[in-house]
Amino acid sequence: MISFKIKELEKYTIVFIGLDIITPNELRDIVPPSVDSGKGVILSGRGPIWLYGFLTHCYHPTKFVAIYDPRLKGAAVVESHDLAYKVGDVIEI
Amino acid sequence: MISFKIKELEKYTIVFIGLDIITPNELRDIVPPSVDSGKGVILSGRGPIWLYGFLTHCYHPTKFVAIYDPRLKGAAVVESHDLAYKVGDVIEI
Repeated sequence: MISFKIKELEKYTIVFIGLDIITPNELRDIVPPSVDSGKGVILSGRGPIWLYGFLTHCYHPTKFVAIYDPRLKGAAVVESHDLAYKVGDVIEI
Repeated sequence: MISFKIKELEKYTIVFIGLDIITPNELRDIVPPSVDSGKGVILSGRGPIWLYGFLTHCYHPTKFVAIYDPRLKGAAVVESHDLAYKVGDVIEI
């Protein structure tokens, strides 16, 4: 079972993943939360790498996708159509 | 420093990630190995989630992208343009 919480900020939406256990076949039924595609998305929370791969792909029409890493104390931008957020930038959150 | 090894199989290419330590700014200089975009790609190896997010995006023009998870003993398909490989399928490798 997967659940999402979202937090809308000015420049991006944070999508928090809430998860017990997930199996790959559940990816078919996931409806990721709608976000404002005029902003970026930061993905945060625990989950297998393939869940992050799936969500990264889901949100690629948005301005940018960044993935939170507690070791960075921020989120690394992994794709971007926004000149203000370059791949490799770390967004402190 | 990141290095890649690739293994060409009939239906997909396995891209193995070889890594010491990576910081997000290094994403800007990564040149992922060229693959046959008429096949899919399986990503395997150790690395931070944001590296996988980056590579998932890089390879989205290919037939499909799957991410290896040792707990699955296979790779979960996270995006696909190939009817034979659906999102959520596990490819045993």
